[in-house]
Amino acid sequence: MNDSSLAPSEALPLGFRFAAVKAGIKPSGKPDFAVAVADKSASAAAMFTGNRVVAAPIIIGRRHLARSAGHVHVVAVNAGNANCATGQGGIDACERVCAAAAETFHCEGHEVFPSSTGIIGVPLPAEKPIAALPSVAASLGATPDHFSQFAHAIMTTDTKPKTAHASLIVDGRTVRITGVCKGAGMIHPQLVPHATMLVYIFTDAAIDPVALDYLLQKSVETSFNRISIDGDTSTNDTVLLLASGASGAAVTADNGAFAKALSEVCLSLAKQIVDDGEGVTHVVELQIEGAPTDGDALKVAKAIAHSPLVKTAWAGCDPNWGRLMAAAGYSGVAVDPDRISIWFGEQQICHNGGRVADFDEPAAHSYLKQREFTVRVDLGIGSGSCRFWTTDLTAEYVRINADYST
Amino acid sequence: MNDSSLAPSEALPLGFRFAAVKAGIKPSGKPDFAVAVADKSASAAAMFTGNRVVAAPIIIGRRHLARSAGHVHVVAVNAGNANCATGQGGIDACERVCAAAAETFHCEGHEVFPSSTGIIGVPLPAEKPIAALPSVAASLGATPDHFSQFAHAIMTTDTKPKTAHASLIVDGRTVRITGVCKGAGMIHPQLVPHATMLVYIFTDAAIDPVALDYLLQKSVETSFNRISIDGDTSTNDTVLLLASGASGAAVTADNGAFAKALSEVCLSLAKQIVDDGEGVTHVVELQIEGAPTDGDALKVAKAIAHSPLVKTAWAGCDPNWGRLMAAAGYSGVAVDPDRISIWFGEQQICHNGGRVADFDEPAAHSYLKQREFTVRVDLGIGSGSCRFWTTDLTAEYVRINADYST
Repeated sequence: MNDSSLAPSEALPLGFRFAAVKAGIKPSGKPDFAVAVADKSASAAAMFTGNRVVAAPIIIGRRHLARSAGHVHVVAVNAGNANCATGQGGIDACERVCAAAAETFHCEGHEVFPSSTGIIGVPLPAEKPIAALPSVAASLGATPDHFSQFAHAIMTTDTKPKTAHASLIVDGRTVRITGVCKGAGMIHPQLVPHATMLVYIFTDAAIDPVALDYLLQKSVETSFNRISIDGDTSTNDTVLLLASGASGAAVTADNGAFAKALSEVCLSLAKQIVDDGEGVTHVVELQIEGAPTDGDALKVAKAIAHSPLVKTAWAGCDPNWGRLMAAAGYSGVAVDPDRISIWFGEQQICHNGGRVADFDEPAAHSYLKQREFTVRVDLGIGSGSCRFWTTDLTAEYVRINADYST
Repeated sequence: MNDSSLAPSEALPLGFRFAAVKAGIKPSGKPDFAVAVADKSASAAAMFTGNRVVAAPIIIGRRHLARSAGHVHVVAVNAGNANCATGQGGIDACERVCAAAAETFHCEGHEVFPSSTGIIGVPLPAEKPIAALPSVAASLGATPDHFSQFAHAIMTTDTKPKTAHASLIVDGRTVRITGVCKGAGMIHPQLVPHATMLVYIFTDAAIDPVALDYLLQKSVETSFNRISIDGDTSTNDTVLLLASGASGAAVTADNGAFAKALSEVCLSLAKQIVDDGEGVTHVVELQIEGAPTDGDALKVAKAIAHSPLVKTAWAGCDPNWGRLMAAAGYSGVAVDPDRISIWFGEQQICHNGGRVADFDEPAAHSYLKQREFTVRVDLGIGSGSCRFWTTDLTAEYVRINADYST
């Protein structure tokens, strides 16, 4: 049901067209300006970063959704510049791009939803995407190839495009959900209703904006809000869900099958982001159990996921479970060390705070050599639990982010 | 007044003797068991890690200080094994070492203060330090060389010993304060009254345990509790202050000159730990100003100090100040991005949330090439402030901590 690529034979949700061009914003000269255009104004729901420092497109995007009462005609995304910490000049630049896109695609300015990703603190050269609008309009299309161009243009340090899709039958009609996202660093989304992770999900179901919002929040909570690569919460994180209604099938907030399909698309995209994390050599599923509450389980998961010592041990395939104990201990949760048990996959490493008698270190080391593995921590004091996906911390991550060239 | 090494001509506080030997705990075969012995029971104050998962010596150390009403005769420290997450066996091992040390040095078991540092989760071979007690007792002495042996034996990934000292005149008598510490990784001490940072401070002033406790807490708050290397709070962090009284000079809690000298010794040791951090190539002093409260300033400092993206930018001498903005934004403090200003040393980079008009990137890059530099962030919304010392995050840090060999 979920795929990391859309086969040419699979149809996209009806009612949307896509295009991407080279606007000259990325220093690499690669495609860096992408649009998604709804045939007619689509129902929209969005969630944005919880960071107090937000990019200009977040401010404008919120404003436009409020003015349009949850409707979007055009999504306009540039990569290579985050348009963040750019002051009033950044706001003006964003508004100029939206106004020009509205003119090109014959809609209201507030029906344009802007996004930016890239370096923070550098003025956005608005003239570049604006100059690219005619060529992007000329190349719009609804084929998987058009969608793939969109997925490539929004990439920054990503090594591959990330897409997922699902379909279901509602009232005898096929409803499709297709998502696309980017993100490889500065990934610890803390999305609040109203992340430099950008996620766009399209469906041809007919759903009103209020129901769309409810469905999106529910799906994001157990997907994008359960991943971390480096613990840095971006200023630009955005998840946008658009519903064209073009399938003719109406979906309400209580449609369990649609909610499940949407959650699967979100979780697939979230895991693809973790898997493509900067310098990542290991992807780790954390299963925290026996916490006082689910919230406490999440605190322990985050302390472990953000510990440089835990993450570097994983990079070395080192079964140094003491670092897990230490992170649980400073998580802020009232853990009792004597009740903590830890498993690497099926192998128990620690029982009630101490190393198991038959600890097989070579076997644990071998298990951690796998690219993907599971670490389960049972705190032994309650019934709170969570699943969380994270990565190791490698010298390559440091190289990617320490690389400086004027 | 503060030095990183004790010149042979400078006298140690009176009333203490030191020794260190090879007990066979460190795989390297280097000296790994050190003792400090007071001529008679010394007044003692200690602070321990705020981590909920604590090592056996922390549990026993607290218990002994309570039973002795703040008195210590012998400090017994092993490196190479943290004796943490070792269950009841670890407690028993620690107690056996203390009992044997008490017999060797003719004092009560609860007058022995134990410390351990090294790997977590591996049973401590108590027989090794116990077997080393006769040779350590035979080699006790009060010379700078003896003290230096102590300072070397407690090292783990440290590249150099760390000591600091101060002296002052109280009532016509010379009072000496000498500190020694270790720590290079898992450094984000969150000391609470009653790291694997180990700090031992000795003075020959006469101070009762209650006053000693007050003086220690005050000094720790602005030194060891203001540093971070990797954000990982250890299960073993310990700061112990012993007062022999052998100078004959009485010091009370309100002695400002003593408090100042003690604070200087603590700050010198804290900065030496940061400077010797694992893989560190840059030491950064953060000056946070204009926060709603001092506590808020500390939150912003910690968010910046723990951001992998900020730390890797520093490793690359990259003036990527947008990462500082992003970290301030997710610090949990209600910052207003439009009021934030940032300086690298004397050079202003950001004014009211935007890049300064005359931003000189090559100059900023040159400034960040220095091993030590200052980053000042003015939040522009209050009068809360703090100073905090931290490091960059390098590929060498990852190599040190990802290195695994069975």
